[in-house]
Amino acid sequence: MTRVVVIGGGAAGMSAASAARRVRPAADVVVCEAGGFAAYGMCGIPYFLGGVVPEAEDLLAYPPAEFRDNRGIDLRLRTQVKAVDVAAHQVHTGSEGAEGTLDYDSLIFATGASPLRPPIPGLTGPRVFTVRSLDEAIELRQLLERGAVGHAVVVGAGYIGLETAEALVDAGVEVEVVEALPGVLGTVDEPLARLAQAELERHAKVRLSARLQEVRERAGGVAVGRALTAVADGTEIGTDLVVVATGVRPATELLISAGAEHLPDRAVLVDAQMRTSLPDVFAAGDCVALHHLVLGVPAWIPLGPAANKTGRVAGTAAVGGTASFGGVAGTAAVKVFDLEVARTGVTLTEARLAGLTAVATDVVSRSRAKYYPGAAALHIRLVHTPDGKLLGGQIAGREGAAKRIDVLATALHAGFTVADLAALDLSYAPPFAPVYDPVLAAAIKASGSAPATSKHAAAGFGRPVLNSVGGAP
Amino acid sequence: MTRVVVIGGGAAGMSAASAARRVRPAADVVVCEAGGFAAYGMCGIPYFLGGVVPEAEDLLAYPPAEFRDNRGIDLRLRTQVKAVDVAAHQVHTGSEGAEGTLDYDSLIFATGASPLRPPIPGLTGPRVFTVRSLDEAIELRQLLERGAVGHAVVVGAGYIGLETAEALVDAGVEVEVVEALPGVLGTVDEPLARLAQAELERHAKVRLSARLQEVRERAGGVAVGRALTAVADGTEIGTDLVVVATGVRPATELLISAGAEHLPDRAVLVDAQMRTSLPDVFAAGDCVALHHLVLGVPAWIPLGPAANKTGRVAGTAAVGGTASFGGVAGTAAVKVFDLEVARTGVTLTEARLAGLTAVATDVVSRSRAKYYPGAAALHIRLVHTPDGKLLGGQIAGREGAAKRIDVLATALHAGFTVADLAALDLSYAPPFAPVYDPVLAAAIKASGSAPATSKHAAAGFGRPVLNSVGGAP
Repeated sequence: MTRVVVIGGGAAGMSAASAARRVRPAADVVVCEAGGFAAYGMCGIPYFLGGVVPEAEDLLAYPPAEFRDNRGIDLRLRTQVKAVDVAAHQVHTGSEGAEGTLDYDSLIFATGASPLRPPIPGLTGPRVFTVRSLDEAIELRQLLERGAVGHAVVVGAGYIGLETAEALVDAGVEVEVVEALPGVLGTVDEPLARLAQAELERHAKVRLSARLQEVRERAGGVAVGRALTAVADGTEIGTDLVVVATGVRPATELLISAGAEHLPDRAVLVDAQMRTSLPDVFAAGDCVALHHLVLGVPAWIPLGPAANKTGRVAGTAAVGGTASFGGVAGTAAVKVFDLEVARTGVTLTEARLAGLTAVATDVVSRSRAKYYPGAAALHIRLVHTPDGKLLGGQIAGREGAAKRIDVLATALHAGFTVADLAALDLSYAPPFAPVYDPVLAAAIKASGSAPATSKHAAAGFGRPVLNSVGGAP
Repeated sequence: MTRVVVIGGGAAGMSAASAARRVRPAADVVVCEAGGFAAYGMCGIPYFLGGVVPEAEDLLAYPPAEFRDNRGIDLRLRTQVKAVDVAAHQVHTGSEGAEGTLDYDSLIFATGASPLRPPIPGLTGPRVFTVRSLDEAIELRQLLERGAVGHAVVVGAGYIGLETAEALVDAGVEVEVVEALPGVLGTVDEPLARLAQAELERHAKVRLSARLQEVRERAGGVAVGRALTAVADGTEIGTDLVVVATGVRPATELLISAGAEHLPDRAVLVDAQMRTSLPDVFAAGDCVALHHLVLGVPAWIPLGPAANKTGRVAGTAAVGGTASFGGVAGTAAVKVFDLEVARTGVTLTEARLAGLTAVATDVVSRSRAKYYPGAAALHIRLVHTPDGKLLGGQIAGREGAAKRIDVLATALHAGFTVADLAALDLSYAPPFAPVYDPVLAAAIKASGSAPATSKHAAAGFGRPVLNSVGGAP
């Protein structure tokens, strides 16, 4: 009988396990998960923290029993994999109080990514959290529910930092965000990132270009709150909680020590069937690099949709089924309080780093017809070559702005130019869009032809140099 | 000097006039508009009726003076074109009290579409309206504001009928919708149309398979309301207002009598530069048939975005500039109270009528992650060939559902299969979508491979035969 061992019970791991059993029902499928939960929506953790999602169980796709009883998957929680012997096709586990060895025919790494912690004093205390596991999130939520947190410092202003800041504000906590870079949300270009910053500043204190240096527990006798002192750029911030959201890195120690080929950032390389360079070893999810459709090279972009999809492919391929993963377009979205920000392809910054000759076209349009109430500004940036090939796009706005990025993601998959984009027959009704959809307005501007009337004309961001930021560095 | 005469001052006509002046600033551009307004958002009329848009002027892109004073366009309101002499390159107008003749070098028809009125008694009375012109809408709104309308009958349940019904309900009017067909919204397939019907029935009385037979003024002495009797299928309905929204037809009498080639539905045929078959005569907007990207033949789909775009192309081409129109994908969207319904490509019904072998795949997904509050059902139908070529799509749901159709419209432009669609890297964050976006869930189902986990699995509409409605008739 074929045995498939999956390391990691997150989205990729459980997708892999389910696919393997579905494709080959006779396969013996074992999942080793180090934590106490499997198959939960990790992206939902910030919303659980803030109480938007009431119960931790709400984040579970299924209770563990579902996998064991109805799907024939041997799901082992709190089971850490200590070592892998690729030559012997064996995995060594260290369960609580019990050690074991598992033979495998195929091995799937779905070990995800681990939070980075800056190497500074005090980050191991009981009131310092990352928000990468549900176990840890439950602990943090209990602190919040006890009323023990009046003030929090969130370190890092990327997706997780921003979502966590929002969650804590929702929970009634006063929040200060400390970011080492000069701006928030480095995954979009500056004009869009500034909109996110402004939105964040409406709700939280934001300290940019500031590094966290130390976290100290304060001397006893503090009646109410401020149990910690966080030091950022020499300033002491009294606080009750520090959340470190300074990014993640691929959790690929075992894979790399076993000899798997990988990128310098330690994301493991896989083919379209999610095979690593090691025999009978697959990998999926946040620990792998995936083919980037715009850049044409493997890139590490750890996000939920690809974790689910690559897990399915790995599980299918691991039992000899047919499946392949085409690649990622770099699409991502985030809610920052009332603002929605989304991106696809490459930013202008990323394009330049990759050595592409790229320009950006910005427009500010509206979410609805001008005369329809509730119309909100919609900011769009298209990134394209000077001769019009689309390389990426970014959108910021309210009420449904983020999902509008999907048109641009689809256009990237299709290899469109901005002129192709301008010719699209996009939907229109006064409550939903101007008659020239914002994407069309941006594409028309980028392709150099003006819209038919300026009825819904695109305006610049109001800064002189933004329209066309040209050339490679 | 080149003179361009444009007949019609709507979206297409004013787009054409503006483009002609922009491309050739020396051109003499004259616009003859029969009504009292130009360049207004006709699609906004229902929202003006109901008071969502406060003033008629809000619908104007620009006041007439803007065109005359700043754009060098000779805009002549209340100027009816009585006859066209193509051989002599002359247009004969009948202004109020004054007749005239205009020589032209290029002539652009942007005459739009005229409302159909069923040939029944009583449809010419003062309380019977179509809502096709702003002049008429102002009159109707005055009736509403006088409090003279407690009850209204809306005849027809297409886009305009549904939007008008909603507008009247918003204005506090009791509404009964009378539709000759057995269902509402014939532009989408039955499963989606039923959702629109259910939403409509929450707010208005709906009488299906019922033809309006007569409208009578009631005998005097009626103190409050119900000034009319509308007779539908033998039933007498006391009402204060009848709005006829039974569709439109191309306003192409002059063009066709001048010999322009046209479809049986009287939409005039044009090439990609919007040239009709008559020398130096162009046409744009709701009066022309346009290349349909899915059907590959000209089709008459009178909607705002194409009117604006084709106007621009016609105006550019009329003065010798370079522009072309690629075609339409059949994309449209409508708000029905709290429901949004959108379509692109062809419906299953339309595919069959066109002789295509088509099937439909339906899923019900969610607008957000399962655990994120406010997630609403999102119904998607994909129409495709049995071997997977995408032919169309339909979406119904709440909060931003309609604009999600644009991914499918883009995919149609790209000639995608459902497998291509399933491979898209669409945006994800818990507030915006399930990790398998609803479009992906539908595409995965249509392409015959199950999603990796059933975490966000697509469910059918709950009716056994809906999944795959196969074959040409």
